[in-house]
Amino acid sequence: MTDYATRLRRAVSAKGTPACVGLDPRLKQLPPEVIARTTSGRTDAAAVARAYGEFCRRVIDVVAPLVPVVKPQAAFFEELGPPGMDALAEVIRSARNAGLIVICDAKRGDIGSTAEAYARGYLAGEDPDAAAWGADALTVNPYLGVDTLQPFVDIAVERGGGLYVLVRTSNPGAGTFQDHRSDGKPLFTKVAEAVETLAHQTASGGADEYGAVGAVVGATYPEELAELRGLMPHAPLLVPGYGSQGGTAADVAAAFQSDGQGAVVNSSRGVIFAYEQEPYRSRYGLQNWEQAIEDAARAMIEDLARHTPAGVLL
Amino acid sequence: MTDYATRLRRAVSAKGTPACVGLDPRLKQLPPEVIARTTSGRTDAAAVARAYGEFCRRVIDVVAPLVPVVKPQAAFFEELGPPGMDALAEVIRSARNAGLIVICDAKRGDIGSTAEAYARGYLAGEDPDAAAWGADALTVNPYLGVDTLQPFVDIAVERGGGLYVLVRTSNPGAGTFQDHRSDGKPLFTKVAEAVETLAHQTASGGADEYGAVGAVVGATYPEELAELRGLMPHAPLLVPGYGSQGGTAADVAAAFQSDGQGAVVNSSRGVIFAYEQEPYRSRYGLQNWEQAIEDAARAMIEDLARHTPAGVLL
Repeated sequence: MTDYATRLRRAVSAKGTPACVGLDPRLKQLPPEVIARTTSGRTDAAAVARAYGEFCRRVIDVVAPLVPVVKPQAAFFEELGPPGMDALAEVIRSARNAGLIVICDAKRGDIGSTAEAYARGYLAGEDPDAAAWGADALTVNPYLGVDTLQPFVDIAVERGGGLYVLVRTSNPGAGTFQDHRSDGKPLFTKVAEAVETLAHQTASGGADEYGAVGAVVGATYPEELAELRGLMPHAPLLVPGYGSQGGTAADVAAAFQSDGQGAVVNSSRGVIFAYEQEPYRSRYGLQNWEQAIEDAARAMIEDLARHTPAGVLL
Repeated sequence: MTDYATRLRRAVSAKGTPACVGLDPRLKQLPPEVIARTTSGRTDAAAVARAYGEFCRRVIDVVAPLVPVVKPQAAFFEELGPPGMDALAEVIRSARNAGLIVICDAKRGDIGSTAEAYARGYLAGEDPDAAAWGADALTVNPYLGVDTLQPFVDIAVERGGGLYVLVRTSNPGAGTFQDHRSDGKPLFTKVAEAVETLAHQTASGGADEYGAVGAVVGATYPEELAELRGLMPHAPLLVPGYGSQGGTAADVAAAFQSDGQGAVVNSSRGVIFAYEQEPYRSRYGLQNWEQAIEDAARAMIEDLARHTPAGVLL
């Protein structure tokens, strides 16, 4: 079995970029052609789930040759109920079949055997068939305590999967609780220290090896990002907030080591709904939406290569 | 539309108890008769999901005349993949049809429109058909910040649903991050203050009225429970940790106001797997598992009535 950090490193090297595309389907933003092809004019959950599945599979077809990682957002599928969950499982499977690393962004967290059930369900690790949802990695919420992360860690290590623990999120109000200070130390650094301990414990060896446990650190807080990279040398980072949320390539540069490894940077709306945005909208119209997505993904890759250490990967 | 706090108060008054039964199915603990009836000797996800559905529906049949609230744990259904999610939706529907308030214990949390998707999917509120999963109320995780709770609050108020924000969980390591102190004030009291603000804002009026936003506070930390009841006078409490996790009726007494309202106390394994435990195992054997569950539920109700202010409800 190959551990998650090694698989991720190889995938990033092979594609020459740490860009991650977020799969966040929203009915109102789907290309009309996808809607027409899948829904027969209906808006029930089964029809919308078909549209989400078709849209995500075609996004995967476009981005799989370009990027190493995709990040489906579970919430949009869950909103639809059971047909949405069927679509989520199919989308994850399609991405794995296309050779992509899949981070399921579900932000789960619970205690003891309940945490274990989430881990067993979502964290397939190396073998997509090892879990119902088939993801390589999962995002998890630390609020319940370090003991509640352990069942996720155990399953991740057993299966060659990865975890990304929420440390510093990208939203405007992230600081309400994450900045709560004790002796001048905000909560998020305490969470980061716990993540580093788990990352180090699960690293397979070697000075520059990453562990199975990583961290979510938002692109929208560049100073904290630099500090947190330093605090968690063994943790692979997942950096949301680039693009539509306002984070720039310069903002995320500190997430990387000099070899361009150590982080993946996610963009969701900025890539998958590029056909709604300029310059792509004028250039391609709604019909050629896949071309707009390809151009936006290439632009993101180039931007990261130009303004971060990830440029050495090319 | 009738708001969640009013519906909950009426349900608790009608049944004369604040007891909540947790629906946490686990394959290894299901009665052999349920396995035999549903799985045809198979252990694939679809078979196990049928067993979970059958078991939970029969638990609901037993407890619906006795208690006001059930709390399905999403993780055990999610572990099974799509068939499990089908079963979860059916179990929630069965419980609503039986007149029970349903708190879906899914501990969701995310930012902005993603949080809204979770809320729209799980928080049906008064009309079970208003959301795919049909629950009256949902547990949510506050780590991402107060701004990320607002979409949940908005949907809850719109639909007559309720929220239970994790404040102090029942696990041994709950304090790792929840106790992080700033000027002597632990994080969980800061979360509690935010919950009280939201609870007060969503209360429909009147000095003793509860809001749509409540809190999860574990039975295993009785001192904090008393303090938190005082800090959140408008928040309905969901108190896990009674029974198998070690919390006693005396430990949860402080969760209630003198009229016996203000909290529901959950027991999962201690009730639904009572047939594995003494004195029920010797008394009924595995065959009469439903009778064991009924006796255990009645014992819990009596215990709460005897040792907490909930006794005045009888």
